[in-house]
Amino acid sequence: MAKDLGITSRSENYSEWYNELVKRADLAENSVVRGCMVVKPNGYAIWELMRDALDGMFKATGHVNAAFPMLIPKSFFEKEAEHVEGFAKECAIVTHHRLTTGPDGKGLVPDPDAELEEPLVIRPTSETIIWHSFKNWIQSWRDLPILINQWANVMRWELRPRLFLRTAEFFWQEGHTAHATYDEAEEEALKILEIYRRFSEEWMAVPVLTGVKSDGEKFAGADHTYTIEAMTQDGRAIQAGTSHHLGQNFAKAFDVRYQSPEGKEELVWATSWGVSTRLIGTMIMVHSDDRGLVCPPRLAPHQVVIVPIAKGDDRDRVNAAADRMAETLRETLWNGAPIRVKVDYRDNLSPGFKFNDWELKGACVRIELGPRDLDAEQAVVARRDMGDKSPVGFSLLSDAVTSALSGMHDNLFERALRFREQNTRRVDSWEEFKEAFEGDGGGGFVLAHWDGTQETEDRIKAETKATIRCILRTPLDPADEQPGQCVVSGRPSARRVVFAKAY
Amino acid sequence: MAKDLGITSRSENYSEWYNELVKRADLAENSVVRGCMVVKPNGYAIWELMRDALDGMFKATGHVNAAFPMLIPKSFFEKEAEHVEGFAKECAIVTHHRLTTGPDGKGLVPDPDAELEEPLVIRPTSETIIWHSFKNWIQSWRDLPILINQWANVMRWELRPRLFLRTAEFFWQEGHTAHATYDEAEEEALKILEIYRRFSEEWMAVPVLTGVKSDGEKFAGADHTYTIEAMTQDGRAIQAGTSHHLGQNFAKAFDVRYQSPEGKEELVWATSWGVSTRLIGTMIMVHSDDRGLVCPPRLAPHQVVIVPIAKGDDRDRVNAAADRMAETLRETLWNGAPIRVKVDYRDNLSPGFKFNDWELKGACVRIELGPRDLDAEQAVVARRDMGDKSPVGFSLLSDAVTSALSGMHDNLFERALRFREQNTRRVDSWEEFKEAFEGDGGGGFVLAHWDGTQETEDRIKAETKATIRCILRTPLDPADEQPGQCVVSGRPSARRVVFAKAY
Repeated sequence: MAKDLGITSRSENYSEWYNELVKRADLAENSVVRGCMVVKPNGYAIWELMRDALDGMFKATGHVNAAFPMLIPKSFFEKEAEHVEGFAKECAIVTHHRLTTGPDGKGLVPDPDAELEEPLVIRPTSETIIWHSFKNWIQSWRDLPILINQWANVMRWELRPRLFLRTAEFFWQEGHTAHATYDEAEEEALKILEIYRRFSEEWMAVPVLTGVKSDGEKFAGADHTYTIEAMTQDGRAIQAGTSHHLGQNFAKAFDVRYQSPEGKEELVWATSWGVSTRLIGTMIMVHSDDRGLVCPPRLAPHQVVIVPIAKGDDRDRVNAAADRMAETLRETLWNGAPIRVKVDYRDNLSPGFKFNDWELKGACVRIELGPRDLDAEQAVVARRDMGDKSPVGFSLLSDAVTSALSGMHDNLFERALRFREQNTRRVDSWEEFKEAFEGDGGGGFVLAHWDGTQETEDRIKAETKATIRCILRTPLDPADEQPGQCVVSGRPSARRVVFAKAY
Repeated sequence: MAKDLGITSRSENYSEWYNELVKRADLAENSVVRGCMVVKPNGYAIWELMRDALDGMFKATGHVNAAFPMLIPKSFFEKEAEHVEGFAKECAIVTHHRLTTGPDGKGLVPDPDAELEEPLVIRPTSETIIWHSFKNWIQSWRDLPILINQWANVMRWELRPRLFLRTAEFFWQEGHTAHATYDEAEEEALKILEIYRRFSEEWMAVPVLTGVKSDGEKFAGADHTYTIEAMTQDGRAIQAGTSHHLGQNFAKAFDVRYQSPEGKEELVWATSWGVSTRLIGTMIMVHSDDRGLVCPPRLAPHQVVIVPIAKGDDRDRVNAAADRMAETLRETLWNGAPIRVKVDYRDNLSPGFKFNDWELKGACVRIELGPRDLDAEQAVVARRDMGDKSPVGFSLLSDAVTSALSGMHDNLFERALRFREQNTRRVDSWEEFKEAFEGDGGGGFVLAHWDGTQETEDRIKAETKATIRCILRTPLDPADEQPGQCVVSGRPSARRVVFAKAY
């Protein structure tokens, strides 16, 4: 049945498969502005579902949304030494506030009379401008904690942009919180890490490792960084979200202090944390297949698509029945919300083309309805992640659809977890380690001993392209927590850490 | 009871009253970046409620969301002659993509080696970049209509910024649609105008006039512009939303054509439309009073605030009862959603201070609960827009709250409508006209005859600061549609049009 829609297969060229899928499923495309993407309606609908789910989790834990300027004075980046190194380099810089007619009398040029006194940077992240505000918001311990989140676009001038995974402009949420003590900030950073893990596993059906970054991989300006790491189908790691304990670094840089109940002036403690449109790329990389997008049901804009199949005299009655069926399904709740249903009435396309089209675009459940089905009061139901399809009586349809959606979520998660387990190994020698990461492929997750030095980390990256993804919070196996010897230097190691090539 | 919280009164200085209210109610504040605001959690919560309501109305009429780049190549603005005049002037211009250490070895400067070949403009509006995409999206009549909306931040370098009303960066939605015919585009532009009117009146409780702009006041690049116009308490007009029929102007500029069913190549017709965070400023200007924010209930983040009043031994049982009361109210639906309730447990503030604080911050209904109230199974209910308060038995509380919210919405709308009616007059001589707009005040809406020329419009603006707000779609009085003589030139006029000083 399924016609070849002409996507490169994963085995042929994984990277090309991804790029083609994103475009052919109408999720996003490159724009004329280098590195900036256009998120098309099909892709943006996924982002909206992600946003609503995450936003609900943030609000349920006491966070509120706000909006800070997208432009940041250049000098703000100079205030925090590590931060400037990490963020003030490849970025978009506003230098003028007016265009004027060019010297040749044609075209527009930046007006030399409208040069800014101080250049402004389009935010690559907002710690600096937000802590500049926090200075005015915080006087007393009664003003703490501040639990703020912002849904925003940010800009980093990426050298090798890639739709969703790494773009110059991207969309994200960035949480910024202020606390009275180290422990409270630590609790917050871990609370968010847990929200990210839950969102990833319960909404995206993507199993993730959670852990802390090595100093070499932490956020520029953080005391330490927590991360969730997923595994793609080509055995690479993908950092899907990070939660930073910022210590008092930004409080120092912006002189933000509070008066304690005892009347003492204290520096404020901070966290920041974010997930972005990269999550869409992650989800695709983990679940999709050679036929197109496989979208985890809780985040699928099209949970059900109904394809009426009828010609001539039958068309009206079959379309009307499809319409009624859609209404019934829309009145059915799944995952706390009405089921999202589309009826594909297009009359210039064959059923076979439509099936392929909806597989490409990631509809979770397809319902086929022809005149004979209608007469028998049944419809044919097919699940996107399975090859088979089967007839279901009208009276059982709502139940069949909700259990198909639940079953699909569970199957995607378990399949991805099994894949990760099959591609995770323990390695104890430098030879084995290098072998694991040889070639262009991923190599999966490698748990190995590391002596804790930057020097060793750098050498491993230079020779194998693998980086430390995280030091696990909960070991996959208690034995991983036993001391050992570094695979490179032979020096003592406290525990195994997770290495992988990463996107 | 009510202590003076120190806001300038409206009669004293309307402009100062507005500025202080926005800051004291914690809605927004100026940032360090000139003209860019920080929207604080209390203000952003209003924007989220506005967004959700409008987004629902757009989606119910077939629109989908997407996201286009925030940076636009300078040359795009040169493609549409009127548009460039209107938008490419005062804007933020990105010229470099990297900072580097300054020549003195300290600080950061834009890297001369990282100058962009073509400067990029932070979008002041997105017609150009979106129509550049539409060129690739549209081939056949089957690709039409395209009904896209974008929630985004935009940037216009304002000379006299004012929180919410006119800021350099602001937040908005911009709809961009493509159609096969003039009539379809016209229908779309009017459909959106009606959504804006309904939103304004049914959600914001702000009565608006709807009409078409004169050519002198239309959007730069539009064939014609529809507008909704509200009246502030100082008798000025405020343009709250616009919907543009763009004709084929952008299709011509970006060469966007479709093949008709008959196989002919045709230029595409367009609309664009937007409302912004200016709506928050509008709402404040129309409803708020000398005690602070008056927030229309459907858009109020705090619909109900419960203030438990108890000391010593009574505190725990009164707080617990307040908590139960909040739960009951949160289970009550009003306007299709659970009532938004806050309990003010703060123990370092007096009840009187809290009452004033919540009046300042715009809680719609205040419930006071003390130990004697609790014993009598009643609470005291006060409505923000009325002076009085009265006891209500627990069993009637949900009903009392929902009818207070409904009553408040209706009262705000009717009060604003009455005020507009009282400040709308018909004027037939140039002397009277000038008199109406004398002084620093607003002057209300003046319906007068106009000869239809730009010259007269310019003269009126120069001499009185009044502009044509719109040519009404539905006359306030049928007699306004009768021909007459222009108040300035004495030349024939087809009908009265609406003049006002505007924000």
